[in-house]
Amino acid sequence: MKGKFITFEGTEGSGKTSVIKKVKIELENLGYKVLTTREPGGIKISEQIRSILLDKENQEMDSKTEALLFAASRRQHLVEIIIPALKNGYVVLCDRFVDSSLIYQGIAREIGIDQVYDINYFAIEDALPDLTIFVDVRPEVGLERVFSTPGREVNRLDLEDLDFHQKIYQGYLGLVQKYDRIKCVNGEQSLDKVVEDTIELIKLIL
Amino acid sequence: MKGKFITFEGTEGSGKTSVIKKVKIELENLGYKVLTTREPGGIKISEQIRSILLDKENQEMDSKTEALLFAASRRQHLVEIIIPALKNGYVVLCDRFVDSSLIYQGIAREIGIDQVYDINYFAIEDALPDLTIFVDVRPEVGLERVFSTPGREVNRLDLEDLDFHQKIYQGYLGLVQKYDRIKCVNGEQSLDKVVEDTIELIKLIL
Repeated sequence: MKGKFITFEGTEGSGKTSVIKKVKIELENLGYKVLTTREPGGIKISEQIRSILLDKENQEMDSKTEALLFAASRRQHLVEIIIPALKNGYVVLCDRFVDSSLIYQGIAREIGIDQVYDINYFAIEDALPDLTIFVDVRPEVGLERVFSTPGREVNRLDLEDLDFHQKIYQGYLGLVQKYDRIKCVNGEQSLDKVVEDTIELIKLIL
Repeated sequence: MKGKFITFEGTEGSGKTSVIKKVKIELENLGYKVLTTREPGGIKISEQIRSILLDKENQEMDSKTEALLFAASRRQHLVEIIIPALKNGYVVLCDRFVDSSLIYQGIAREIGIDQVYDINYFAIEDALPDLTIFVDVRPEVGLERVFSTPGREVNRLDLEDLDFHQKIYQGYLGLVQKYDRIKCVNGEQSLDKVVEDTIELIKLIL
């Protein structure tokens, strides 16, 4: 693969979507071809799966069903979008990837990180990110942002309680310790400073 | 679990659906509580997944995506229908289960039986069938039945070529050799004789 694969992780309301938009512009100004994408979006089959996952009516969904659906969506998105872009030399910025499943299903849903890693390994094989940026915003700050943003649609995962979001946050801090490819950026700074710190980390792998 | 879990496998047009209907009546006449079900049906979330899998427009679906979707659907169906019925003492007759994935994704799609077994083990844990009936009909006979049945809807899997169906058939014969829980019934006999042979096998585990 000629390109670089960079993923962004964070709790709800961490602002990573805004960060990705600005990072894309900065990297393009530096002369790189950049593709931004997010799971499971853009791909027809993955969007069909997403609609099942985010359907507020599907409260009876089992945690393992959820984990398998995320892995299925990830696989299709990877095969149709990410791998071809990397082969064509793009820097791919992806909003959430495998680490979201390790946290949301492995830790918060209590399936276990290793079990969730195994089904995701089936899905992604050796296409692990070259770099993962964890946009570090405490959950109470992130949720405050989510609920105070006009027009922001509240989805099924947002409706979980604060304990759930705390588990997720602590889980991410654990992954940062565990995997060298995951780097932490303070997301409670101004957006420009978050972007600046992120670009510095990305430059180290380009 | 107090009940018994019996699954039915076969190639397209093997007639297992008709067999299951008659077996249910026979077992009820013998005094058993019987539940018939099929993957991924009946359950809202599993039906939503089924509609993605059988959508003729989704020709770009990757084999591993397909395997993960079948496993997700299986999990939800198992948790919502099969396990509660077994706990309530029912004999559960299920039209296709884990072996279909071992064959359709593991062998025919060439992912490998062991890899497909692993993600299905994640999905079903220790809920393997007590007995699996393989309704043995050669694929050329089965496909002839499919295409000559008035009003039978032809789905995405039916449209694969005969080589594909031959691979599936040979794969099933391999599983019959490999797993003691899978028993073979000659499905090219009259329906009544197929049902009679099936009931004999079921009586051995009741």
